[in-house]
Amino acid sequence: MKKIKLITCLVLLLAAVHLQAQDNALEKNSHYTGASATKKQYKAIYQLDQNDPHIIEKTFRNINNALSDPRLTGKLQVELVAFSGGTNAYLKNSNYGEDLKKLVEKGVIVAQCNNTLQERNISRDSLYNFIAIVPSGNGELIIREQEGWTIIKP
Amino acid sequence: MKKIKLITCLVLLLAAVHLQAQDNALEKNSHYTGASATKKQYKAIYQLDQNDPHIIEKTFRNINNALSDPRLTGKLQVELVAFSGGTNAYLKNSNYGEDLKKLVEKGVIVAQCNNTLQERNISRDSLYNFIAIVPSGNGELIIREQEGWTIIKP
Amino acid sequence: MKKIKLITCLVLLLAAVHLQAQDNALEKNSHYTGASATKKQYKAIYQLDQNDPHIIEKTFRNINNALSDPRLTGKLQVELVAFSGGTNAYLKNSNYGEDLKKLVEKGVIVAQCNNTLQERNISRDSLYNFIAIVPSGNGELIIREQEGWTIIKP
Repeated sequence: MKKIKLITCLVLLLAAVHLQAQDNALEKNSHYTGASATKKQYKAIYQLDQNDPHIIEKTFRNINNALSDPRLTGKLQVELVAFSGGTNAYLKNSNYGEDLKKLVEKGVIVAQCNNTLQERNISRDSLYNFIAIVPSGNGELIIREQEGWTIIKP
Repeated sequence: MKKIKLITCLVLLLAAVHLQAQDNALEKNSHYTGASATKKQYKAIYQLDQNDPHIIEKTFRNINNALSDPRLTGKLQVELVAFSGGTNAYLKNSNYGEDLKKLVEKGVIVAQCNNTLQERNISRDSLYNFIAIVPSGNGELIIREQEGWTIIKP
Repeated sequence: MKKIKLITCLVLLLAAVHLQAQDNALEKNSHYTGASATKKQYKAIYQLDQNDPHIIEKTFRNINNALSDPRLTGKLQVELVAFSGGTNAYLKNSNYGEDLKKLVEKGVIVAQCNNTLQERNISRDSLYNFIAIVPSGNGELIIREQEGWTIIKP
């Protein structure tokens, strides 16, 4: 009988220790408040490759949220590159002209993949005339990341 | 006639050489067994920004697969950051409480974008109380990547 | 009356200055022609994790566009790693055998996540026999990025 009592006690103790460890991990997680921005400059390139109004509007929201993150204020340079279906956001008859202009005025580079224009037979003139043209969207992402930019796909 | 025979022979030879080169490339590819993990530590931040059960569950599977990759065992630190539609996975009435707790117990930082809470008028209290809050999900991705973390979007 | 005229003039002047600044920003953006590739070598790993013909075909197009970007010609090494639903592109009964062979012949590493094969009970033999197998797709992405490769998710 004494042995059984001892074993029961030990099992209960171990269970309590495990629960305490769980609680500690959860407690510790809840106190995390985000990474600190210790660098002088940050650079991010946003990939817009879907013709979906939810994704297009999310992309604008994402960029604006990054630019106004208190950790990054005044330290963040942004480029937006469209290719594949994302190109539709730049067409003159899209509804996004004002959103795009506001991004450019905030210093965001707004660029379009030339390959997509050729593949889809879209003329340069059907895009807002302030849009920049780059040889390929994928090349732009690869070169930028290896220059230290972060790729974000909303 | 001699000339024609010679040309036919050459063409067949070149075709054979080309097929051999093809076969060699395919054979060589089949022998690749994955990159070697030569660094002491690896860090990855997972982006959860869609309210889609398939994507949410895939994200948990992806993180668990990375943590149990034999090349990375004991060397990989992970953060999961939710924003936009991904926030729904953290709501107390979601079905993901146990999955999220298990991630935290494995050392994964589980964090939520504060901008999304404000934009969607979601109170801190409607999320599991162990969730960490960061100023913006996009800022977190950008700062982390420039600290050497890898961004993965499932 | 003189004061009112003066204020009106000032307001009009400020508005004109603001419009000029807007125009300058838009004009400057339109002249951007893409980042310059100053490095000797570039490496990109493409993530294929959806069983969606549009995404699979977009992935092939994206890789080919990157390889033929004039800034990257002869400087770009590419790997394609499939996991989750992306695995279907490698099944012998898919329609993608020729596209995949062409990638391998261009020097692209074409690899499959072993975890997905186990989770979905897919035998090695049901994939094209030239496909490489890596322990996990997520591990491969993380290790590659920390070796200097750029992750692209089409």
